[in-house]
Amino acid sequence: MKKYCFGVDVGGTTVKVGLFTVEGQLLDKWEIITRTENNGENILFDICESLEAKLDEKSIDLDEVKGIGIGLPGPVLDDGTVLQCVNLGWGKFNVSEKMSEMFHGIEVKAGNDANVAALGEAWKGGGKNFDDIVMVTLGTGVGGGVILEGKILTGHNGAAGEIGHMHVEDGEELNCNCGGCGCLEQYASATGVVRLANRYIAKNSESTKMTEFGEDITAKDVFDLAKEGDKGAVAVVEQMSTYLGKAMASIATVVNPQAFIIGGGVSKAGQYLIDAIADVYVKYAFPACREAKIALAELGNDAGIYGAAALIV
Amino acid sequence: MKKYCFGVDVGGTTVKVGLFTVEGQLLDKWEIITRTENNGENILFDICESLEAKLDEKSIDLDEVKGIGIGLPGPVLDDGTVLQCVNLGWGKFNVSEKMSEMFHGIEVKAGNDANVAALGEAWKGGGKNFDDIVMVTLGTGVGGGVILEGKILTGHNGAAGEIGHMHVEDGEELNCNCGGCGCLEQYASATGVVRLANRYIAKNSESTKMTEFGEDITAKDVFDLAKEGDKGAVAVVEQMSTYLGKAMASIATVVNPQAFIIGGGVSKAGQYLIDAIADVYVKYAFPACREAKIALAELGNDAGIYGAAALIV
Repeated sequence: MKKYCFGVDVGGTTVKVGLFTVEGQLLDKWEIITRTENNGENILFDICESLEAKLDEKSIDLDEVKGIGIGLPGPVLDDGTVLQCVNLGWGKFNVSEKMSEMFHGIEVKAGNDANVAALGEAWKGGGKNFDDIVMVTLGTGVGGGVILEGKILTGHNGAAGEIGHMHVEDGEELNCNCGGCGCLEQYASATGVVRLANRYIAKNSESTKMTEFGEDITAKDVFDLAKEGDKGAVAVVEQMSTYLGKAMASIATVVNPQAFIIGGGVSKAGQYLIDAIADVYVKYAFPACREAKIALAELGNDAGIYGAAALIV
Repeated sequence: MKKYCFGVDVGGTTVKVGLFTVEGQLLDKWEIITRTENNGENILFDICESLEAKLDEKSIDLDEVKGIGIGLPGPVLDDGTVLQCVNLGWGKFNVSEKMSEMFHGIEVKAGNDANVAALGEAWKGGGKNFDDIVMVTLGTGVGGGVILEGKILTGHNGAAGEIGHMHVEDGEELNCNCGGCGCLEQYASATGVVRLANRYIAKNSESTKMTEFGEDITAKDVFDLAKEGDKGAVAVVEQMSTYLGKAMASIATVVNPQAFIIGGGVSKAGQYLIDAIADVYVKYAFPACREAKIALAELGNDAGIYGAAALIV
């Protein structure tokens, strides 16, 4: 009987791995180093070796394993083909087929890491009580994932859910990593919040304690000060929430989700952030979309392994 | 054998009906009046009567009819429940169940009219060569529909594809019909183009022939003048295309469609409009979404009956 599955979340530095029951109980998790040298040729091999070792350790027979889900940092088509994973050194190939060949012909399914994390939250995290969610991940960048009836919306080129690159500001002069200018990611990510803070400080240095942090100010510092009522920090959070709440209202006119799930490092600001976003969202949302729930993600760094496992169950 | 189906497109003034083969060949089409008095209580009855008459006329047996698809002017849930159809006088009820009861228990499926028109274009019109499309209908308002793998994306409250109500302009002072302010519909619809033209004329009356049309200027007049090189009309088309192209780039970050299909009365401006939109879209689109095709709708006013039929085949 197929009682178990693996969820694998491949990052540029480490690979996170989880052993799950097919019902979604996390039995064990661990990490291995991502060896990116030689165009990352060892990565899949290292993962397979680690999975074999775990099966031995737990005395689990291969016949009891339903399959392997794997999240990857780049666009992934529905058949498991990656177009490019810059951080891994990979070009185009079918990861699902390749890994299945390497691991006893077992079923392997692959997805984009942001989409897979969204699937994890939809399955067992902040989105578990909703049918359709849009996940918004506020980390170093802004990622996203659209989950409709428990399935990832991939898009024609694997770029569905790339909401960090929605154009939200005409007046921006700096380029985004994508080459665009004025992307949501430039304001709503951790680095974006810091950018907004520095811009505020440059113009209004006397009215905020943000100046005391100097160049090392973090998004967390900004939110902590805002919660204390610091005028400048409050203004920065309002600016960030305005970009994000409006973008979410735009997203809702396209897919009308039941809920938005907010994750990533910046979401540690908690209910304060949710309230700030919700104020803006309600103002700009189309009436029939206004009731969408806005909730915090719950799985933290484990969202990726949960979602990868969800690909296979 | 189930050889036939009906596609019904209910509007506030007339109901359009089509008799189709299940392969999608339109055999006959006609219209009846929409009787909206007494909260539209006669509408479904009139439709059923008209369908019975057509079966008699064509000597088609009921057993040969696969079902009836119906497009309605309001949000429709996946089970056929309408929440409200203001233009018909209808409140909340399950249209599919009700009409099936009224018509020999035959299968009936219902959808929102804009979504259903999008499905029609995806099935037999401008989108027939694509898997995933977003339809943009530029009429009196701006409607939309998201078709993924041949199916309408309905959304949690039936509001997916309501892209006319994406907020695109902070500086607007007039309200949109939805109660919002600065919606795409306020600039990219036929009335929106006229609004932009009037605003241009108010500021620059000497540099454009648009003034010669006075208050009766139409969107068609603006596009005709723009094609002739009239400076003011070109500026208005650029403004309208900028709003629309940016909004489409935003849509692409959410669902990454293979193609956008542009329909509605304004789309009669043809390739000139498509080129104007495409220039903006390519500039603002996320790299992986940039290759999306932008094509004209092909079915005109028949898109609704085609799409309604597509619901049932």
